[in-house]
Amino acid sequence: MKLPEPGDVRAAALRLRGKAVVTPLLSSPQIDAQLGARLLLKAECLQRTGSFKFRGAYNALAQLDAVKRGAGVVAYSSGNHAQGVAAAAQLLGMPATIVMPSDAPAIKLANTRFYGAEIVPYDRYRESREEIAQRIATERGAELLPPYDDARIIAGQGTIGIEIAEETRTAGLTLDLLIAPCSGGGLVTGCALGLASSQCDAAVYAAEPAGLDDMRRSLAAGTRVVNDPAARSICDALLAPTPGEITFALARRLLAGSVAVTDDEVRRAMATAFAAYKLVLEPGGAAALAAVLSGKLDVKGKTVAIVASGGNVDPAIFASALG
Amino acid sequence: MKLPEPGDVRAAALRLRGKAVVTPLLSSPQIDAQLGARLLLKAECLQRTGSFKFRGAYNALAQLDAVKRGAGVVAYSSGNHAQGVAAAAQLLGMPATIVMPSDAPAIKLANTRFYGAEIVPYDRYRESREEIAQRIATERGAELLPPYDDARIIAGQGTIGIEIAEETRTAGLTLDLLIAPCSGGGLVTGCALGLASSQCDAAVYAAEPAGLDDMRRSLAAGTRVVNDPAARSICDALLAPTPGEITFALARRLLAGSVAVTDDEVRRAMATAFAAYKLVLEPGGAAALAAVLSGKLDVKGKTVAIVASGGNVDPAIFASALG
Repeated sequence: MKLPEPGDVRAAALRLRGKAVVTPLLSSPQIDAQLGARLLLKAECLQRTGSFKFRGAYNALAQLDAVKRGAGVVAYSSGNHAQGVAAAAQLLGMPATIVMPSDAPAIKLANTRFYGAEIVPYDRYRESREEIAQRIATERGAELLPPYDDARIIAGQGTIGIEIAEETRTAGLTLDLLIAPCSGGGLVTGCALGLASSQCDAAVYAAEPAGLDDMRRSLAAGTRVVNDPAARSICDALLAPTPGEITFALARRLLAGSVAVTDDEVRRAMATAFAAYKLVLEPGGAAALAAVLSGKLDVKGKTVAIVASGGNVDPAIFASALG
Repeated sequence: MKLPEPGDVRAAALRLRGKAVVTPLLSSPQIDAQLGARLLLKAECLQRTGSFKFRGAYNALAQLDAVKRGAGVVAYSSGNHAQGVAAAAQLLGMPATIVMPSDAPAIKLANTRFYGAEIVPYDRYRESREEIAQRIATERGAELLPPYDDARIIAGQGTIGIEIAEETRTAGLTLDLLIAPCSGGGLVTGCALGLASSQCDAAVYAAEPAGLDDMRRSLAAGTRVVNDPAARSICDALLAPTPGEITFALARRLLAGSVAVTDDEVRRAMATAFAAYKLVLEPGGAAALAAVLSGKLDVKGKTVAIVASGGNVDPAIFASALG
């Protein structure tokens, strides 16, 4: 098993230049006053496709040769990876097939189609998306691009860590903490690698849904554990059953810990992002903000970056978080 | 009457450097495909205080000498100018008093207080905010800072035009149209001056609420006309009764026209900003987007910038626009 290294994140940043949006790092004096901290919110909801997933997908697909590109890419995803892969494939002129849960948010299904991908639906609670995707990839000779347990994907997501480190330094700040949402762990471990590649030694935490906090429990156990299949969360983007092999190996080395947040804490964070930052965050995209606002991490007097990782949320869910 | 000139916007840009957020210019491939145009959304809802108003306020107050600063500033505002003045005054260490309608959105009242300003409430439909503010300013020897009919205010808002012109040019695009929301006209005429100072000759349009389209009717009449006092709009930031003297003189010279948008068109634009750009826009902040989405301006094949001027909206109003 080859782990990605800090230099891979640097190389990804070069590939993504002019392709990915360099998303803004936003501040709110109201929230800073409330927390007694300096909070920097990395607005990846403003990324191409509405989430950070484009970064990893483009970094992976841009490394394929012409023959592989012609055979296309297959992916499975609860939604954001789907859009990221579809958009990256379209930019690179590749066909894309996405295996998506039939109950994925409507906006994620529609946008994946918009980027020209073929969608193969499956039942989230009864079928194996990995098996379906593997079968299609084998039939077509296509690249199977997993959502997180892939060195190229992790390196791509890690470019967020580089951008945060560089912007923080330019502003004359020393970053103490970075918190990123965690499903399979590609984003948060990538960010940790990105910080390392920028000589930034902030402590890095994952934020997970309560009851689906497999990373937190795996780190405590020293081995990968699996979530209860009956566990549910409002965070439809953070439902991976267990950390990846690569991401867990990185997490053990690079993460300071993981914080579990409840659905109510996530909804409150979405409402805060609305009022204080004027941003639309999906539930999973608000998990890191929820970890900070809930008081579960001690941020007093610190400079803290959070990744607001996506904004693809159906209007009714968003409205209910505001109510 | 001294009109602001393009050079005044350049000078404002220097004053605002490091103080105002250089807000991002966002794209959505979905919206571009729908319109058959290249739409660039200037996200001023991400500006300090949640709207563009900070720019003009800071540019004006930063030009006061120490004695004037000590006497403080008085302003009247439906909300966004209030926050802009309060935040600028706080940065400059000045006391601020704001005359605000008692029915202003709760978030605008709370945030104005957060920035340390004293609030004097008045009845929007029965009292003259200008008279109340003038009396307080005279009593205290304070600077009375009007919301739009002031060369320093207009020049400050115009820095948005410079940023749009420069970013568009850097991207290798030629801007055809710019549309900005219009209440008293400070933002839209400032933007036109900013484009002029950047040698960009895009046509500039105002976007106004239907029934409160005093700028459109004034341009048609060749003289300033007043809105029906009974007219109402969801756009609480765009209720000025008539164009300013300075802004109207500029508008006659610099604007290509004005487009009136209905409440329903504004609500649909807010929903589009939510889904396609992941941004929270207040009704008035979505007026320019509404002008484009409604089809009232011909944008086919063009490169079009719109100013999304603010995001200070109460949750219930936002949720109803999504529903």
